Amino acid sequence: MAGSEPSAVKQGLTLPEPALDDNRSHEKRLRDTLGLFYSDPVILPLETTRKLPGLLENGGFDLDTVLVNGPCGWHVADVAQSGKINGVYGLAIDLGSTSVVFYLVNLETGKIIQTISRENPQRQHGEDILDRIMFAGRGGLDILQREALDLINSAIQELTADPGLNPESIYYCTVAGNTTMCHFLLALDPSHICKEPYIPAVNSFDLVRPEELGINMHPQGFIYVLPNVGSYFGGDLLAGILSSGMFHKEEISILVDVGTNAEVVLGNRDWLVACAGAAGPALEGGILSCGMRAQEGAIERIEISPEDLSVKYKTIGDSPARGLCGSAIIDLLAEMFRAGLVDQTGKLMVQRDPQRMRQIQDEWAYVVADESETATGKPVYITQSDIKNLIRSKGAMYTILNVVIQSVGLTFDDIDNFFVAGAFGNYIDPKKAITIGMLPDIPLEKFKGLGNSAGMGAVKVLLDRNSRKELQEICERITYLEMNVRGDFMNQLTGALFLPHTDLSRFPSVKERLGLE
Amino acid sequence: MAGSEPSAVKQGLTLPEPALDDNRSHEKRLRDTLGLFYSDPVILPLETTRKLPGLLENGGFDLDTVLVNGPCGWHVADVAQSGKINGVYGLAIDLGSTSVVFYLVNLETGKIIQTISRENPQRQHGEDILDRIMFAGRGGLDILQREALDLINSAIQELTADPGLNPESIYYCTVAGNTTMCHFLLALDPSHICKEPYIPAVNSFDLVRPEELGINMHPQGFIYVLPNVGSYFGGDLLAGILSSGMFHKEEISILVDVGTNAEVVLGNRDWLVACAGAAGPALEGGILSCGMRAQEGAIERIEISPEDLSVKYKTIGDSPARGLCGSAIIDLLAEMFRAGLVDQTGKLMVQRDPQRMRQIQDEWAYVVADESETATGKPVYITQSDIKNLIRSKGAMYTILNVVIQSVGLTFDDIDNFFVAGAFGNYIDPKKAITIGMLPDIPLEKFKGLGNSAGMGAVKVLLDRNSRKELQEICERITYLEMNVRGDFMNQLTGALFLPHTDLSRFPSVKERLGLE
Repeated sequence: MAGSEPSAVKQGLTLPEPALDDNRSHEKRLRDTLGLFYSDPVILPLETTRKLPGLLENGGFDLDTVLVNGPCGWHVADVAQSGKINGVYGLAIDLGSTSVVFYLVNLETGKIIQTISRENPQRQHGEDILDRIMFAGRGGLDILQREALDLINSAIQELTADPGLNPESIYYCTVAGNTTMCHFLLALDPSHICKEPYIPAVNSFDLVRPEELGINMHPQGFIYVLPNVGSYFGGDLLAGILSSGMFHKEEISILVDVGTNAEVVLGNRDWLVACAGAAGPALEGGILSCGMRAQEGAIERIEISPEDLSVKYKTIGDSPARGLCGSAIIDLLAEMFRAGLVDQTGKLMVQRDPQRMRQIQDEWAYVVADESETATGKPVYITQSDIKNLIRSKGAMYTILNVVIQSVGLTFDDIDNFFVAGAFGNYIDPKKAITIGMLPDIPLEKFKGLGNSAGMGAVKVLLDRNSRKELQEICERITYLEMNVRGDFMNQLTGALFLPHTDLSRFPSVKERLGLE
Repeated sequence: MAGSEPSAVKQGLTLPEPALDDNRSHEKRLRDTLGLFYSDPVILPLETTRKLPGLLENGGFDLDTVLVNGPCGWHVADVAQSGKINGVYGLAIDLGSTSVVFYLVNLETGKIIQTISRENPQRQHGEDILDRIMFAGRGGLDILQREALDLINSAIQELTADPGLNPESIYYCTVAGNTTMCHFLLALDPSHICKEPYIPAVNSFDLVRPEELGINMHPQGFIYVLPNVGSYFGGDLLAGILSSGMFHKEEISILVDVGTNAEVVLGNRDWLVACAGAAGPALEGGILSCGMRAQEGAIERIEISPEDLSVKYKTIGDSPARGLCGSAIIDLLAEMFRAGLVDQTGKLMVQRDPQRMRQIQDEWAYVVADESETATGKPVYITQSDIKNLIRSKGAMYTILNVVIQSVGLTFDDIDNFFVAGAFGNYIDPKKAITIGMLPDIPLEKFKGLGNSAGMGAVKVLLDRNSRKELQEICERITYLEMNVRGDFMNQLTGALFLPHTDLSRFPSVKERLGLE
């Protein structure tokens, strides 16, 4: 079979009828006929062979088989009369610590036919993943696993009920999550992930059978959990590398997942370096005074007129404002800087707009939406401390990028593709991120949002069985830089704690656009 | 690893300790260290990986692993602190329709440490295997399977209790049985085995996991059921081929399993032909008036003095006689022939020994042991009809051997090894079998009893993981002759219905010894 092949395929067969001079068993007859299509031997689980005598006796010799790609080639997961297999589907899961996204994929057409997103029920044990690791250590690991499995099983019910399928139509399940989330799912002790020397129990997971976890899908299918490269470099990011295709290109790409941790991969088809470092949760909006997740009522875009300082914003669902989500925070700082509402050190210029500057909880704050416009009856604002946090986070992000680039003797000018991954990566306006000095000052067309790259990577594994091998190769090829132990990081960070940077030559377009000196 | 390797092995390992500059996961650390001993990648089941964090945290980095040979290489079935694995054992099963024999094998030493034999509880549904196939067709298949599994599980309890092991010490289980018995064990529909064109559901069984059958052994182990070549050529005989080693030799061997069916294999390392045909149950003693299984009280050896016609016999356990088992029946006919008590057509010479000749149930019979010497108070004898049956069976056996030999253009003189397999094959006296014309007249030293060749073949698979591949190769190499559709069989049978044969030139040693003309 040429080209990319899904991880589960349907194969129609016409078996020769038995005769006195052809008394091969049903099993051998099936294997030999499959051998016309597949050069390697197939594995025939007992449950499948049990179906053969009845089928061949009652219904003739035209069959449909479903083959799933196992640890050593194809397994015949199912067999039925021709036309009686009710579709071959796969389930891709983006197992996020906040949200879990499920994609039901028709493996015959390659189309995603349904997507649903659910809050991760594990959040009740801590928004911060470290709290959940502690909870696991206090005997909660099985509970965390149960919650993940129940969520998956109820999502399977929901996804299959609507198109009139049943869970057994799902023959393959792929899971992309960070290292800790995957450990929770598989009930693997995660305690060493957050203790020096930061080692996960497992980097590469062998295929898991549905019965090992109790996942309600076809019992002869497989579950594939994407590998990780380390405690802070998980399968979600590997899925991003896979979906970006950067490891196939000759040109050099950088991929960054913007979140609590900034995870960075740099390279091409010959080499890959990666590193992760704490960029601070401020970028996701989580810890800011008025930060919130990207839900209804979250402000997502902000413009401030440098002339009259008027503010325009857009909320998700066009509802009354409730707070600021990640993309809005970057917009806001960039627009405030452009309008002279903060200086290069991030200090609020209170006199520039006395109307919107207020003392809130003993410090100055800039009000984006006042109490009359919001859903809560309280203003939406950003404080001086928020800005300080934000600058530290964006500075860390820039520094991490810079250290990685320098570690291989390159500069940002050598980068051909700049992939921005992660749930909110897609919503970042690169121009604004450059303005505050979070992303490097390179031509805007080089920036490419990857959407939900974890989810898309998991879907890709469903649609191309060779992806599993590719992911293994990526893992083996990646050189991981331990950011926390690199001295240059702290040295370089200082310069990045300005807007956009102490060294303006690094941001020529910002310098020119804003008339900085 | 050079030489033959068992299907499950213990491997001690010392893992390097984690450090900041070596933060491989526990899993990767284990895989890499195993990679020093095994060139192919190993599979690490989820259950095994779950044990790693606790082990490495609490007990240091000296481990013992148990590797089992799966469908595509080694699986790490278990891992423990060094010295804490309580032995690595395998269970070989000779799954006979009458008796089931269990061998507990220490896979570290290669020694069989215990053997037990149990009656097959399926006999309650019919002594004849066809009756059991009918019972399966009436909805009894699950019952037949349950009985086999219960027997296996209770044997495992018994075998492991004595040496102070537990069932989890058994990491591999191999089963050699005829085609039908294996179908019962795996609950595969056997109905086509006895209907034209006589096709089994399965020829080659992929490895089965303990949980698929509910066998109480190590859950990460495997069960291997030896393949069959057809409905009447089962894994028991393939086990015989394996244990004879005939497929490795340059010289030509013939292997015959003497039983209800005469199953014959002829060949060497380059080619193999096989055939099976009904030799009649008389050879096993089953249907004769005083026939019985080889149990306590069964007469197993008989000598008759040609001079004074006195009879000497030996019983199993030296107990009072109860009946005649298979080996005694062959002895008896040979000795009667030698002593002139039957003529060449098998007719009883009543006048030769009027004392022992009696009318029993309207026909003549020859009394081996009279009522005064037996355990039952009834005589042990052989009737004229018994002799007729017996001659038909021995004639069929000889004819089958002859047809097979002729089919490849050979004669019996070309045979270097004559292996006699089967539970009672070992007890046949070749000289006596030649006297009655059941086995060909070749030098006695060429005959080699294989003992319980089915059991020994199953043990061999435990002790040499390559045996699985060899068995597959044997299956692919064998040419199976359908005896029932060959005209020469009936033509040749007629001459073989004499003692030893109408053509005395085929039996020169008998002719000379007995002075026949």
